Amino acid sequence: MTQDLLSRIAAVVGPHGLITDPTEMAPYLEEERGLYHGHARMVVRPGSTAEVAEVVRLCAEAGIGIVPQGGNTGLCGGAAPDVSGHQVLVSLSRMNHVRAVDPLNFTMTVEAGVILQTVQQKADEAGCLFPLSLGAEGSCQIGGNISTNAGGSGVLRYGNTRELVMGLEVVLPDGQVWDGLRSLRKDNTGYDLKHLFIGGEGTLGIITAAVVKLFPKPKDVQTAFCALADLDSVLALLARARATTGDQVTAFELVCRRGLELGCTHVPGVSDPFDALHEWYVLIELSTSRPDSNLSEALETLLGAALEEGEVVDAVIAASLDQRNGLWRIREGVPEAQKREGGSIKHDVSVPTSSVPEFIRRATAEVEAALDGVRVVPFGHVGDGNIHFNLSQPVGADKQGFIDEWNG
Amino acid sequence: MTQDLLSRIAAVVGPHGLITDPTEMAPYLEEERGLYHGHARMVVRPGSTAEVAEVVRLCAEAGIGIVPQGGNTGLCGGAAPDVSGHQVLVSLSRMNHVRAVDPLNFTMTVEAGVILQTVQQKADEAGCLFPLSLGAEGSCQIGGNISTNAGGSGVLRYGNTRELVMGLEVVLPDGQVWDGLRSLRKDNTGYDLKHLFIGGEGTLGIITAAVVKLFPKPKDVQTAFCALADLDSVLALLARARATTGDQVTAFELVCRRGLELGCTHVPGVSDPFDALHEWYVLIELSTSRPDSNLSEALETLLGAALEEGEVVDAVIAASLDQRNGLWRIREGVPEAQKREGGSIKHDVSVPTSSVPEFIRRATAEVEAALDGVRVVPFGHVGDGNIHFNLSQPVGADKQGFIDEWNG
Repeated sequence: MTQDLLSRIAAVVGPHGLITDPTEMAPYLEEERGLYHGHARMVVRPGSTAEVAEVVRLCAEAGIGIVPQGGNTGLCGGAAPDVSGHQVLVSLSRMNHVRAVDPLNFTMTVEAGVILQTVQQKADEAGCLFPLSLGAEGSCQIGGNISTNAGGSGVLRYGNTRELVMGLEVVLPDGQVWDGLRSLRKDNTGYDLKHLFIGGEGTLGIITAAVVKLFPKPKDVQTAFCALADLDSVLALLARARATTGDQVTAFELVCRRGLELGCTHVPGVSDPFDALHEWYVLIELSTSRPDSNLSEALETLLGAALEEGEVVDAVIAASLDQRNGLWRIREGVPEAQKREGGSIKHDVSVPTSSVPEFIRRATAEVEAALDGVRVVPFGHVGDGNIHFNLSQPVGADKQGFIDEWNG
Repeated sequence: MTQDLLSRIAAVVGPHGLITDPTEMAPYLEEERGLYHGHARMVVRPGSTAEVAEVVRLCAEAGIGIVPQGGNTGLCGGAAPDVSGHQVLVSLSRMNHVRAVDPLNFTMTVEAGVILQTVQQKADEAGCLFPLSLGAEGSCQIGGNISTNAGGSGVLRYGNTRELVMGLEVVLPDGQVWDGLRSLRKDNTGYDLKHLFIGGEGTLGIITAAVVKLFPKPKDVQTAFCALADLDSVLALLARARATTGDQVTAFELVCRRGLELGCTHVPGVSDPFDALHEWYVLIELSTSRPDSNLSEALETLLGAALEEGEVVDAVIAASLDQRNGLWRIREGVPEAQKREGGSIKHDVSVPTSSVPEFIRRATAEVEAALDGVRVVPFGHVGDGNIHFNLSQPVGADKQGFIDEWNG
C-alpha cells in the first residue's frame, strides 16, 4: 500500500516534492526541543494548491492520516506525526510565494509556506506594517501562524493572527479546495467559515494561502518602564494609557520584582533602573504612524497623571534606542534568567484583563501552599490578559525533581 | 397541535411572554416598509436564556419552525415569518438587561434584546465607547446586529460587528445552550465557533447574550470635505490619511457630483462648499481619544500634502460643530435627495477597497448602456470598500416603470 501511494504521490509532486530517506525526513519528525517526535511513511512537499489537493485526495482514498506542517517551530507537538509510522507528513515549505501585495487595500496575499519575516519584509517594502511578530519569526510560516492563531507582541494593538486574516484558501479533508481567498473589508455572503480553520491546528483542512491585513508603518515609538504602587494599579494604568494616548499602546508588559532580580543576577545588560525596590513593574510602549503627534508628550502626560493618582510611584522614559533596548532587556530577560536559575515550570494563562491581579494573587497562594519554597515569577502581556505564570525551583533544590512536579 | 404547544409554551414564558391576538401580533409580522410580511402561530417573548432554550426545545420536538427577531428594523425580510402561519416568532425584546460593564477589561456583557443605543449609552457612562453606530440604533437590538454582522459608520476604524464580539451565548436548534460567553482577548481553546452564529442570521441558533468590546472615548474630532482631482485619487488619499494621522481615520466617505447637486436641489441645509465644480468628493473625519494630539494639525498636514501631490484640488475644514454638521449633511443628504428626485434603484456593493474606482467605472458604463438616461449616483463608505451604487431614474421618467427595471 505504501509503495502504491508513494508512486502516486511522486507522480503528483515530482522528485523534489517527496522525501523518504530517514535522515532527510528526521528534521520534519521532531519538535525542536526533542519533547515530541514521531515517524512517517513519507514527507511530501507539494509546490502548489493543486498538488496539496491531489495529495490529500490520494491519502483520503487510501485512508491514511495526514499531519500538515509549517515551519515546525511549535513547542506543543502539533506539527509532529505520531509514532505509528503510518501518517504522511505534508510540509507547506515549498508554497512560499507572495501572490500579491496591495498597499492601497492594505492587504497581502501569501502562500502558507511564506516565512513570517518575509511577510513582514514585503509589507515594509510596500510602506506598510504586518504586525504579527514573535520569537520564531525567522523560521515559522504564516500558514502555521494562522493554523495556531498565534499571538506575539502585537496583540494588544492589532489583535491575534485571527484578526489579521481577511481570506483563506484551504484544502479540505477530501481534497476539495475551499476558496475563501477574499480581500473584502465587509463580507456578509453566507457563514464566515474561515474562522473554523484559523486556530483549527490543521484538523479541518490544510491552509494553502491567505489574504492578510496590513497597517500603516509606525514612525514614532516611545517606551517607559514604571514601578507600580501595587498589583491592582496595573489595570487603572492600562485603561488610562489606552484612553489618553489615542489608543496607541503597543506593549504593556508586567514584570515582577523576582523577575527583575533574577535578570540582574543572570542576564548581561539587565539592571534595575530604580534605586528603591518595588514589587511590580510595567513596560509601556506607544507607537504611531503619525510622525508629528508629540507622542513623547503623551507618554509624559500619562505618567505624570499616573504618578499623581498614585498608580505609579516611579518611572523612566527611554531617551535613546539603547535605553529602549535596555528596558526591553529587563522584560525579555526574565525567561532567560529563570532558565539559568534552575528548573522552571511554565504556564501560559489567559484571563479577562481585569482579572489579572486576582488570578496572580490566587494562583500564587495556591502554588506556594502546594510547593514548599517555590518561587513564583509572573510576567508578560497583561494588556492581552495573558500572563506567563512561571515557577522557579526552590533555592538549592534538585532541578529534575522540581520539573517532575509539573505532571505530579 | 397548536393548542397543546401554546399551553406548554405559556407555561414556560408566562402570560407576559405570549402573544396570540392578531392585532398585537401584527407589528412583529411585518417589515417596516411593508415589503415583507407573514403569519405566525404565536409570538413568544421569553424573559431569560432558560426560557428561550425551553421554547426552542418544545418547538423542535413539535417539528415547528422558529423565526428569531430582534428590533425588527432589517429591510431584507430576515426577521419576518413566512406566509404559512405555521412558524413561531421568538422575539428577544424582553431579554434587555446589561449583565455587566467592565471598563478595565473594555468589555460589556449584554442580553440580545438590549437596544443598540442603550449599549452605546452604558459604554459612555463607563467612560468608554461602543463604536457600532447605524441609522436604526434607537430601536435595533444588539442580538440582531450580531446575527446580521451589521456594518454602520464605525467600520473603517473599528471593524464590523463581528470584530466587536468577544463572546456569545446561543440557544442551539435542539434547545441546548452553547455557552461561549467569554471575555478573553486571547482564547485558543478549541474551534472558534462563535463566528458561525455572527452573521448567521439566526439560522444556526438564537443568540441570547454577548460580550462586546469597548474602546476609549474620542476626545477630539476633525472633519474635512475635499474635492478630488479624479476618482483614482481616492485610494492614494485614503492610504495617505491612514498613514499620516496615526490610523485615526474614522470616516472616509465618497460623494459624487450628482449626489451633491441633487442634495443642493432637494435637501435643506445642503450647499456646495466650493465655487468650482468637481466630479468627486470625499468627507474625511479623524478622531482620537487623546485630547492633546493636535489632530487639526494632522488634518491640515494631510490635506496640504494631498494638494501638493495633486490628489486633492480643493478642501474645507470644519471650524465648528455647525460646519461639521453641514459637511455631514452633504453626505447624508444623498439618499434623501434621490428619494425626492423620483425612482431610485439601490445597490449596496462591497469590493476590495483598491477596486472601488474600477468597480464604479465599469458598473457605470454597463448601467448607462443598459438603461437609457439613467443617472448613476455612487457614494458611501469607500474606506470599507462598500459603495452605495444607486441609480436615479431618467429625468421625467415614470417612477414605477423605472423601479420595475430592478428585477427586469
